[in-house]
Amino acid sequence: MEKIIGLIDAPFTPFYENGDINLEPIPAYAAMLQKNGLKGVFINGSSGEGYMLTKEERMLLAETWIKAAPEDFKVIVHVGSCCVRESRQLAEHAQKAGAWGIGAMAPPFPKIGRVEELAKYCEEIAAGAPALPFYYYHIPAFNGAFLPMVKFLETVDGRIPNFAGIKYTFESLYEYNQCRLYGGGKFDMLHGQDETILPCLAIGGAQGGIGGTTNYNGKNLVGIIEAWKRGDLETARKLQDYSQLVINVICHFRGNIVGGKRIMKLIGMDLGPNRTPFQNITPDEEEQLRKELEEIQFFEHCNTL
Amino acid sequence: MEKIIGLIDAPFTPFYENGDINLEPIPAYAAMLQKNGLKGVFINGSSGEGYMLTKEERMLLAETWIKAAPEDFKVIVHVGSCCVRESRQLAEHAQKAGAWGIGAMAPPFPKIGRVEELAKYCEEIAAGAPALPFYYYHIPAFNGAFLPMVKFLETVDGRIPNFAGIKYTFESLYEYNQCRLYGGGKFDMLHGQDETILPCLAIGGAQGGIGGTTNYNGKNLVGIIEAWKRGDLETARKLQDYSQLVINVICHFRGNIVGGKRIMKLIGMDLGPNRTPFQNITPDEEEQLRKELEEIQFFEHCNTL
Amino acid sequence: MEKIIGLIDAPFTPFYENGDINLEPIPAYAAMLQKNGLKGVFINGSSGEGYMLTKEERMLLAETWIKAAPEDFKVIVHVGSCCVRESRQLAEHAQKAGAWGIGAMAPPFPKIGRVEELAKYCEEIAAGAPALPFYYYHIPAFNGAFLPMVKFLETVDGRIPNFAGIKYTFESLYEYNQCRLYGGGKFDMLHGQDETILPCLAIGGAQGGIGGTTNYNGKNLVGIIEAWKRGDLETARKLQDYSQLVINVICHFRGNIVGGKRIMKLIGMDLGPNRTPFQNITPDEEEQLRKELEEIQFFEHCNTL
Amino acid sequence: MEKIIGLIDAPFTPFYENGDINLEPIPAYAAMLQKNGLKGVFINGSSGEGYMLTKEERMLLAETWIKAAPEDFKVIVHVGSCCVRESRQLAEHAQKAGAWGIGAMAPPFPKIGRVEELAKYCEEIAAGAPALPFYYYHIPAFNGAFLPMVKFLETVDGRIPNFAGIKYTFESLYEYNQCRLYGGGKFDMLHGQDETILPCLAIGGAQGGIGGTTNYNGKNLVGIIEAWKRGDLETARKLQDYSQLVINVICHFRGNIVGGKRIMKLIGMDLGPNRTPFQNITPDEEEQLRKELEEIQFFEHCNTL
Repeated sequence: MEKIIGLIDAPFTPFYENGDINLEPIPAYAAMLQKNGLKGVFINGSSGEGYMLTKEERMLLAETWIKAAPEDFKVIVHVGSCCVRESRQLAEHAQKAGAWGIGAMAPPFPKIGRVEELAKYCEEIAAGAPALPFYYYHIPAFNGAFLPMVKFLETVDGRIPNFAGIKYTFESLYEYNQCRLYGGGKFDMLHGQDETILPCLAIGGAQGGIGGTTNYNGKNLVGIIEAWKRGDLETARKLQDYSQLVINVICHFRGNIVGGKRIMKLIGMDLGPNRTPFQNITPDEEEQLRKELEEIQFFEHCNTL
Repeated sequence: MEKIIGLIDAPFTPFYENGDINLEPIPAYAAMLQKNGLKGVFINGSSGEGYMLTKEERMLLAETWIKAAPEDFKVIVHVGSCCVRESRQLAEHAQKAGAWGIGAMAPPFPKIGRVEELAKYCEEIAAGAPALPFYYYHIPAFNGAFLPMVKFLETVDGRIPNFAGIKYTFESLYEYNQCRLYGGGKFDMLHGQDETILPCLAIGGAQGGIGGTTNYNGKNLVGIIEAWKRGDLETARKLQDYSQLVINVICHFRGNIVGGKRIMKLIGMDLGPNRTPFQNITPDEEEQLRKELEEIQFFEHCNTL
Repeated sequence: MEKIIGLIDAPFTPFYENGDINLEPIPAYAAMLQKNGLKGVFINGSSGEGYMLTKEERMLLAETWIKAAPEDFKVIVHVGSCCVRESRQLAEHAQKAGAWGIGAMAPPFPKIGRVEELAKYCEEIAAGAPALPFYYYHIPAFNGAFLPMVKFLETVDGRIPNFAGIKYTFESLYEYNQCRLYGGGKFDMLHGQDETILPCLAIGGAQGGIGGTTNYNGKNLVGIIEAWKRGDLETARKLQDYSQLVINVICHFRGNIVGGKRIMKLIGMDLGPNRTPFQNITPDEEEQLRKELEEIQFFEHCNTL
Repeated sequence: MEKIIGLIDAPFTPFYENGDINLEPIPAYAAMLQKNGLKGVFINGSSGEGYMLTKEERMLLAETWIKAAPEDFKVIVHVGSCCVRESRQLAEHAQKAGAWGIGAMAPPFPKIGRVEELAKYCEEIAAGAPALPFYYYHIPAFNGAFLPMVKFLETVDGRIPNFAGIKYTFESLYEYNQCRLYGGGKFDMLHGQDETILPCLAIGGAQGGIGGTTNYNGKNLVGIIEAWKRGDLETARKLQDYSQLVINVICHFRGNIVGGKRIMKLIGMDLGPNRTPFQNITPDEEEQLRKELEEIQFFEHCNTL
């Protein structure tokens, strides 16, 4: 199975002020991402507030991103939900609509406590899009599914034919590496934490990754990988350190989904508010956010439209 | 606002073997519950695998239960979901369909960390059914929303006009009692743990409750309240102790949603399997379950059709 | 084995301003507790900052309390520590010094993850005082030992000859009751949460308990049990509700160990500061604490010297 | 302040079969560690079961290690305990006995919830050995002190004169790096997870570290740093991957404190059993452990006496 090389972006979902989804910015959004070095998008995931969308909205977003995608730009559709039936329908739809691949995180409810439960959940969904690679999206801090990933790989290996790998959004580079080495490296281990791309490269990973801060800081994150590849450790460190500074800022503003989405407005691409229960950035907070970004010269280094 | 007196049942959702929802048993189910002393149902909640149903299935279940409800039998529809838009649509539908009330638990994703987030979430949903009482369903072990409930009451009091109270499924009888006393007792505090009805009665609560094991053990649970009311502490204790024995058994079979649902088959009302990711009771487990229930003479004391 | 009837107090440890332990107040402290209806003390526990004392200090405190104890006033010595050798020495010392009983909580480090580990830990300590009843002090919120207590009873039953029961400081009245019923009620289940004495009485427990707020609110807590015994539910509820108000206040001041200890000064028995890492009540906080207590007429209802 | 270059070992504490501490192996132990490339020891920490030792035992161990230390071999004494008074006495003793430095983890009881509490705890202890560098040992998985470390550095900076840095035993290389960069790199950030030395080197850290598996696998772990320094990434990766294999094995045997300690016997240095509540390796388990180690050719690559 093809392995992803380079960084995929997890885009935000644009909303109108009244809360309806707004499809208009998507073509420009896709072009901007490609211009800044991103290789595709992982839509309707956590950054995209996928769980907060209706099934119809998720389908519409998938169709729109697929149509808007420039050449050589992958669209992976996150289809996970608490309802496995709905997820399977979304998988079928993604394949029919022409997605490059699909993914699903563990449902947050009921909380998954056994590897077998997770395997069965993924199996039923992946079977809905048999022609597409399926990625498990491991993000236990969000859904409580703190399960051992090597054991999960052993369980799905040979059982889910289109299982491609894991989007690994967790701190353990030890477990990441054990998954990477599993079965002679047969699965695609996408690194999922922008703050540690360089350490992951060192152990032989991060050939491919999915980022959230890539939306506005993708150029620098792509730069880490490029610098590493040409043996320029000093630049790689400088860019990784800088990218952590950016993450420090969004941590002051309720993280990437809320604070990061508002940064998009500040760099010229207003994507609107977040859905309830997220608490939107107030005008005062927006001013503070701009100030903190200016202090690190962000607007001279960020993604450009 | 009217306060609920007596026990409401949280029914299981019947499925065919192929996994489709099965509406056929519902009229007999409703009649059985009323015959055994239950005052209504709280449908599409955790026992009902509500989060694992599509929006269309949830609406269909609501309509069917409302039609099937005998006189003086309340139908409360759980409309909570990760997507507040969908929840609001479900609330509107419930009101139009003739439900007695609605309820919603905190979404498990994104995990609610602030009382204000929860208040806003409930506010948007409750506004969809302004003519119906809205109950917040507090079950933090399931969704991680370990928020202080007195502060929550202070926040929604006067802000959500149709806020009725809390279905309180948590161990702290201290916090339960503080909520019960709040504002001179203005809100309806439905007790939500069948294992501690008697202790809750002692502090002045449990006038109303919502149970999960009431599906098959409702007669005994209703009996606790009746015995207490007539001052027969000995019988109340005996029935509470017995009800704990029943709960001990289901704890050996993955709890009420999985093990409890299979008990329904054993007492003559087969409601089919659970949805993925739940792991269904195997035939061997079913035999063991029957044996453990026989050991406590369950079939002589359980609900009758 | 004798079961404890009535409430035992968990006293604070008096310190001089320089942080040395202060033995002077102990005789008056013991007399005050007995005068207000307490049946004994459980010293060097969490309220007593036992883990923050040296071995020598713990022994000195044990000797002093035993000497100061009036007739019919039990002294139970908490001997738990991270070092099982030291705990055993403390157990031996307690027996030699004339204590009525001993107790130990699970060590917070290493975190206990298996019932067998806990059983072995208790076994080694209990063997140091074979002539005294040994109580396991279950307080998982403090030490992370969230282990199933019925299984623990099964494991120590017949293995630790002087095992007497559990000081149960946890919210699950379901598990408490299952422990109470275990083996025909052979073990002494001491209730350990002052906020829920009445609910516990209703299920047949709380014949004996160990309190922390009994230091200053013991009269009312003892009153709950007395009212219940004479069938006066109304008074029992009133006193339980009032006792919760007192607990509401200490929750604003870092809980019983910090806020509660300062209340002792306000009722006329200054016991000095807390040990690091506790953050002591500041003079401003003390004023606020006094004010909140006055608002609930505490000084007219509290323990009297 | 001098920064540590290279790896420090956290030794196990030798016990006789009867559970008494055994000082005899220590000189040979120290020599073996130096021979295999270690730069010193961090004694009485978690690997050393420090919390399970009496104060007298801890002092005796400190004196013995200091006497046994070869030239250019640092002895850092962990002095943390639940009793800050005892920790301070241990700090004073360590300085008088000639230790190179001291360290303390956050107490597991009471659980530290505020940075200020931790700062005060460290301040009182560090003041006991003003001539020695003090290291905070951050290992939140063991003691629940999940506190933000950059904020902690801000709090102690300029307040604890002999504060040297952090032994960082946690997965977040993001936070590690932010601490490393704090104040122009003024503090010594000792890396504390043997499974991720290489990733940490990549971001500019791990110049110094403290290991637990270094007791038997130190040669390979030291080799990672040496290979990295000479630009040999391939060897560094090979050694890091191998070191993870060793860690995979000990994870099957209750981790380093229990399983790792028994490996010492298998490589020729029997250090005896663990203290209660640890469950010792059984003879059957020991055979299995040997077998799993043989499968990865461990005995050809391990530390040599």
